[in-house]
Amino acid sequence: MPGTGVLPLHAAVAGLSGERFVVRYAVTGDADEARAKAEDICLEQTVEFPADLLPAGDIPDHVVGRIERFERASGGRSEVDISYAIEVAGDELPQFLNVVFGNISIKPGVRLMRLLLSESLLARYRGPRFGQRGLRELVGVVERPLLMTALKPLGLSSAALAELAYRYAHAGVDLVKDDHGLANQPIARFEERVGACAEAVARANAETGRRSLYLPHVIGPAQELHARAHAAKDAGAGGLLVCPGLVGFDTMRSLADDDALGLPLVSHPAWYGSFVTSPEQGIAHYALYGQLQRLAGADASIFPNVGGRFSFSAQECREIAAGCRDPFGPLAPAFPTPGGGMQLDGVAHMRALYGDDVIYLLGGGLHRGLEGLDGTVRNLLEAIAS
Amino acid sequence: MPGTGVLPLHAAVAGLSGERFVVRYAVTGDADEARAKAEDICLEQTVEFPADLLPAGDIPDHVVGRIERFERASGGRSEVDISYAIEVAGDELPQFLNVVFGNISIKPGVRLMRLLLSESLLARYRGPRFGQRGLRELVGVVERPLLMTALKPLGLSSAALAELAYRYAHAGVDLVKDDHGLANQPIARFEERVGACAEAVARANAETGRRSLYLPHVIGPAQELHARAHAAKDAGAGGLLVCPGLVGFDTMRSLADDDALGLPLVSHPAWYGSFVTSPEQGIAHYALYGQLQRLAGADASIFPNVGGRFSFSAQECREIAAGCRDPFGPLAPAFPTPGGGMQLDGVAHMRALYGDDVIYLLGGGLHRGLEGLDGTVRNLLEAIAS
Repeated sequence: MPGTGVLPLHAAVAGLSGERFVVRYAVTGDADEARAKAEDICLEQTVEFPADLLPAGDIPDHVVGRIERFERASGGRSEVDISYAIEVAGDELPQFLNVVFGNISIKPGVRLMRLLLSESLLARYRGPRFGQRGLRELVGVVERPLLMTALKPLGLSSAALAELAYRYAHAGVDLVKDDHGLANQPIARFEERVGACAEAVARANAETGRRSLYLPHVIGPAQELHARAHAAKDAGAGGLLVCPGLVGFDTMRSLADDDALGLPLVSHPAWYGSFVTSPEQGIAHYALYGQLQRLAGADASIFPNVGGRFSFSAQECREIAAGCRDPFGPLAPAFPTPGGGMQLDGVAHMRALYGDDVIYLLGGGLHRGLEGLDGTVRNLLEAIAS
Repeated sequence: MPGTGVLPLHAAVAGLSGERFVVRYAVTGDADEARAKAEDICLEQTVEFPADLLPAGDIPDHVVGRIERFERASGGRSEVDISYAIEVAGDELPQFLNVVFGNISIKPGVRLMRLLLSESLLARYRGPRFGQRGLRELVGVVERPLLMTALKPLGLSSAALAELAYRYAHAGVDLVKDDHGLANQPIARFEERVGACAEAVARANAETGRRSLYLPHVIGPAQELHARAHAAKDAGAGGLLVCPGLVGFDTMRSLADDDALGLPLVSHPAWYGSFVTSPEQGIAHYALYGQLQRLAGADASIFPNVGGRFSFSAQECREIAAGCRDPFGPLAPAFPTPGGGMQLDGVAHMRALYGDDVIYLLGGGLHRGLEGLDGTVRNLLEAIAS
């Protein structure tokens, strides 16, 4: 053996069950390069150590990642399934993320495509507390797609935002959320805004007999986030908007798992767009906006709709919807929540793309309708329910 | 005015000071496309609302981002400086990140290049608690570069890792950190490992008279992270390794700001590599590995060194070092901490690149030296101190 003799020559690793989980990556390069990248992932994501210096035994045999499948795919890419010992990821979400895409995120030409997780690994995560069914029960809408909109623009006072919230809920919007740009600015402080908007939505519900929910954006100092979420609940919030990119995926998970809180969570994609803007690296839409959101407890996952201000393709949106809904161990399906790009004359197209188990997030364009806000929402509700 | 009449026609925004901060972006496209992208950033990062539907007054005049400079740059890109009202970002780091790169991260062809922050905004952040000077005082090394290495491979028992920690500290490595792949796995549970390694480094220090520090990796459930950090301190840790991509930038900031903890933090780049793997989008090295780390309180910022296993260029590494050291309001400079690629015959080249205020993170290759671990470290220390 080469080296300095400081490491043991042989090592047994205690506590390995033999159980493994699989992650699918796409890698660039010709067959040899792609194979070398796959082998590199196996080391980089586990031992991060030169293979020839590893102690013999369980470490190379079980701890290092293992190529389970290697296949040349279209576009000069290769698809690789790599398995990891379940104990390498441990029981905690941050370390799971670390294993599946920690260091390798820094190497060009590697894209995380999909998580292929065993039931027993998935059973370590609660996932969405409400899921599609639970959220439907909360708002009392059995079959049709749900409508969501956002309180904005930033700059309005808490009173003006509350007036908007009232109007949206009164018009029939199921889920009225803060814009993700509303935080705790002096313009409309969190507690003041949340109290006013929750009261406004409750007032609208009392008049309509509906059960619209108000979902404030919970963002802020790490050590205050749970307190802020509980304050929102106490003020009457019916759910929370969370940006896992900004506060951390595991922070969202901890809010979802908080039994004393018990609110549905809607996830917003701010900050980590760079994972998807280059097709050769980052994380595929299916995994990022679908699987990871469910692992981290989101009941609905917002993403930019095809045809809106962003550049997602219909196929990418379809994959996100699948990632939100496909069987994933015991984890409930989440609502795909395409934002923007939803108009009356596009309802048939949207239905073909998403089906009925979807939340449509209506943007600022909602204020453009000739029929007024109530008429626009009524027409949309009729179109999506018919 | 078009629209449904639900929004006010005019709005005054309370609490605006008139003070603004500036963010530099690079955008792709010809001059017209680039200009359109710049105008889009101004809306997308603030009101996220159609310009023609905004209430007149302070919102378009002050809340919406403002193009302060627009210049065609090399490579068909344009450089744009956009200013935001300081109140839009508020006092909290997650919302600051949201404003500078939240939604726009999802749009192709926009790269965050640099933060140009006012003194009064920077004064809201404590930044690195120790910085370069404070960390030098802790380890008792006045001038030369510091040496750091990582305990690995994953799979070793706590006892074996502690033996390594002893050997490294005894050989003269200033900072002995956990590999970022060590979490709280059953293979070497956090508390057991930290206690054993801290004791080992203390024992080496007692023999050498040096003041090497042990820095465990603190990762885990969001609501347990501070407790884990304090447990590490109580067990004798001299600092902490934190992955802001995995636990959240503001979680790192909250650890740095914890007066009762008071430990230096070393930041690891796992998870967010996708921000840099495509040159046309994401976040430039200067801002990501330099400025953002200091805002979030890191005393040292690890990144992949040129010539190592990753693909960073010498110029990118130079920019990171500048981002760690350039004047940044009252925030102390952090140590650029290039990982890998450091060998005896490259010392002159590394010194030309980084100067002396740097930490060299030695990888697994440390075990390859013919002189044994002690000899290799001694030769490196002599080379970098001469």
